[in-house]
Amino acid sequence: MRGTFYGVGVGPGDPDLVTLKAIKVLKRAEVVLFPSTGRGKESIALAIAKDYIPEGCTLSPVFLPMTRDKEKLEKAWDHVSLEIAEHLDQGRNTVFLTVGDPMLYSTYIYLFSRIKTAGYSVQTVPGVPSFCAAASAAGLPLGEGDEKIAIIPWNAGESLSAESLDPFSCAVFLKVSSDLTGVLQLIREGGFFRKGILVSRCGHDNEHIETDLSALEERNVDYFSLILARKEES
Amino acid sequence: MRGTFYGVGVGPGDPDLVTLKAIKVLKRAEVVLFPSTGRGKESIALAIAKDYIPEGCTLSPVFLPMTRDKEKLEKAWDHVSLEIAEHLDQGRNTVFLTVGDPMLYSTYIYLFSRIKTAGYSVQTVPGVPSFCAAASAAGLPLGEGDEKIAIIPWNAGESLSAESLDPFSCAVFLKVSSDLTGVLQLIREGGFFRKGILVSRCGHDNEHIETDLSALEERNVDYFSLILARKEES
Repeated sequence: MRGTFYGVGVGPGDPDLVTLKAIKVLKRAEVVLFPSTGRGKESIALAIAKDYIPEGCTLSPVFLPMTRDKEKLEKAWDHVSLEIAEHLDQGRNTVFLTVGDPMLYSTYIYLFSRIKTAGYSVQTVPGVPSFCAAASAAGLPLGEGDEKIAIIPWNAGESLSAESLDPFSCAVFLKVSSDLTGVLQLIREGGFFRKGILVSRCGHDNEHIETDLSALEERNVDYFSLILARKEES
Repeated sequence: MRGTFYGVGVGPGDPDLVTLKAIKVLKRAEVVLFPSTGRGKESIALAIAKDYIPEGCTLSPVFLPMTRDKEKLEKAWDHVSLEIAEHLDQGRNTVFLTVGDPMLYSTYIYLFSRIKTAGYSVQTVPGVPSFCAAASAAGLPLGEGDEKIAIIPWNAGESLSAESLDPFSCAVFLKVSSDLTGVLQLIREGGFFRKGILVSRCGHDNEHIETDLSALEERNVDYFSLILARKEES
């Protein structure tokens, strides 16, 4: 019998923020794939999940090219999907680990659609997204009552206007380290600056919360940083 | 010694989607407050968490007036906050349960700010939001690559324009049962209709996923329904 492919969200960093469901799936896993930035480098997803992975389970790092070239990325996703399909064909339950939630900005999305289209059984286990954990850690409510929230992954070249944020009371900016000056300018123009908070490495031992965005203007911030912001009341 | 106030997110409905951290906090709880819609009615948050609450723990339902009158609501939040403060003064660890995540559209936000301002120790435990669980259940990615996401709690009288959704590739509409016609019209105008999915009672035994929004036009939907939508490719 073919194995099942599981996408498992392991939450933002604290192993205690893993769900019971994720742990149950991991305990039955025969193969666990995890994103890795390079040989010998620690995988954040694996560090969170490692206590829940059974002995004898095959661990397989997934290296993806650090590129925005869609063609190269698609080739890499195809390649990983073939590896997953081989495991499934041999009857192994195969897990792909994702930091945070698997349906939010995870490589899992690309693997999921390929494996699903190929006709395999797929199950996705949601997880606590990093921005929710950051809001709890910082004590900053994201949505109250009828407030709308915008989630914006920031990358160099972002061209969002401040006006386009008018309907939103709260905003979450992801991947802010690539262009902090640009993010801070938009946050200021949109009226979110005074109630903005930067959270780096949320849920990790070296978590850092900066409640004064103006202290950041001349600094480099950690790659794993996000900004939560609420609109200043007029 | 004063007790600590905990806001605990218990996820969308499946007791297996509770985190280890939530369970650890619940096991040490001496008082657990939970939102309830009326005497004798089942509380969803309590149903999710009940297996993790220790024997002898005081269970206290919180009834809030079904009104949008801010003054009445603030009085009710003040009243509940005083009850919580009394428990804390008597040294009891006191938990407020929230379905989903405590910093997203929860009554906890109003209690949190009052208890925090009064100088008590407060800890918030994030949870899996219902829209993440719905995306996993429906197999619909919410954010890929640089895609922006809008989260919109829908209430009667909503006046968002379709153009204001232009920068967003994905949208999450909450509380859609109040005005399904209005939501569907905006989703259609915004170009999200064909890839829209309605999920009701996500993670509960009576979960329902509707992948064809046009089947909904003449129907009433469950109060606990949300719509996930991706923009149609041009």
